[in-house]
Amino acid sequence: MRRLEVIGIEGLPEIREGDDLVALFFDALHEMGMELEDGDAIVITSKIIAKSEGQVVSLSDVEVSEEAKRLAAETGKDPRIVQLILNETRELVRVGMKMIIVETRHGFVCANAGVDESNVGMGKAVLLPRDPQASAAQLRREIEERSGRRISVLVSDTFGRAFREGVTGICIGVSGLPALLDRRGERDRFGKVARITREAIADEICAAANLVMGEFSEGIPITIVRAHGLTGALSSEREREHESGIEEVLLTRDKDLFR
Amino acid sequence: MRRLEVIGIEGLPEIREGDDLVALFFDALHEMGMELEDGDAIVITSKIIAKSEGQVVSLSDVEVSEEAKRLAAETGKDPRIVQLILNETRELVRVGMKMIIVETRHGFVCANAGVDESNVGMGKAVLLPRDPQASAAQLRREIEERSGRRISVLVSDTFGRAFREGVTGICIGVSGLPALLDRRGERDRFGKVARITREAIADEICAAANLVMGEFSEGIPITIVRAHGLTGALSSEREREHESGIEEVLLTRDKDLFR
Repeated sequence: MRRLEVIGIEGLPEIREGDDLVALFFDALHEMGMELEDGDAIVITSKIIAKSEGQVVSLSDVEVSEEAKRLAAETGKDPRIVQLILNETRELVRVGMKMIIVETRHGFVCANAGVDESNVGMGKAVLLPRDPQASAAQLRREIEERSGRRISVLVSDTFGRAFREGVTGICIGVSGLPALLDRRGERDRFGKVARITREAIADEICAAANLVMGEFSEGIPITIVRAHGLTGALSSEREREHESGIEEVLLTRDKDLFR
Repeated sequence: MRRLEVIGIEGLPEIREGDDLVALFFDALHEMGMELEDGDAIVITSKIIAKSEGQVVSLSDVEVSEEAKRLAAETGKDPRIVQLILNETRELVRVGMKMIIVETRHGFVCANAGVDESNVGMGKAVLLPRDPQASAAQLRREIEERSGRRISVLVSDTFGRAFREGVTGICIGVSGLPALLDRRGERDRFGKVARITREAIADEICAAANLVMGEFSEGIPITIVRAHGLTGALSSEREREHESGIEEVLLTRDKDLFR
């Protein structure tokens, strides 16, 4: 049977600066009586990576610039949050409807530069991880070393989208798997050759994981996505040489019809 | 264990106009030795629904307008395909980089109005289903009647996105489940109240399904997404009164920062 499983890893503690995420992950696996398998995709929320890196800011420490004050007045946001957003921003993409959409210094187009006040103490906010792509690669190495399995790691966040309401799980760092599954050149059942289809499997995996993670109080920050009988996206036989990471999926401004 | 399964339904034949999708689906389930369970989300690609409705067009039958010729020259597309796109279009959103992004007559913002030449015979193209939301509701009723289970039906397609390369599975019709899981008002682990998070679970479910469906030659047009131990998104206890369908997720122009 062709089947995909998304397994929530339970029992992880609240993450603090300096915590060893890999050790805590293996402890939780052990508690659940689970073992990793070749081909597992391990999806980790950006939030716990950011917390382990100490990317938590006390709002009372933020010095607010004139630009932040102006944007805060325009959008109805806390000026200190706006300042944190600006600190993480390479370029403002859209401001309006009480939203600030930016390109972050990492190249992600999203609301509020990923600065988030949820699931962190009162008066605090969490930034995105320093370098989510590097975190994915580093975590993959550590998990592979410890488990002896060939796995992939995806760092997930939740972003809104153009044209549609609501947020979905999305990938901001990936190692061990291509961000895009390139199907150009494959033939369909009628012998036609695919011309343009590249499937954003890293984003789809993070979307699937988000269904199990829950966005708010449920709090499952790590999931394992495991494929059974699938020869495509997630199989362990997949070519792994191709490690272009999440950058491959990010449209630069000159290729983007919506900037 | 909190777990989600995405199960590919195999053995479905090539779908033709007038085929009874529900009967074929139950035949395939039977062949696989599977039964439906309460809470199952059944994801069906728009393509087989469109084919069953006869939404397949021979390009040689298309009469090409002047506007279609002009857009075809501008984008390098087949003028007959452009005509089909225009026929399905409420509004052109962006034209450029060899792409035509439109709002379809159903309200979906996507490339080529969903007109697709893959997995249909040479010289032919498939349109989107006539009314994917109505199809979702109708298929749900029929499947529930026949199975005695309370299930949901999602009609999926694959769309590109702003800001990111690649396509992902996305929902264009949903019945039995809200398109958006509204978490506003829930409290996080620190007691903060969520202000804006609405999770687009219908799109996430279709993204998860697309990992199993494969985009091209693999051809699994129906999947079952089954939750185990999840109290949120997909559980059978979920409130089902709220049947607003896919419209809930579609941003109207006046609420859309990117139009």
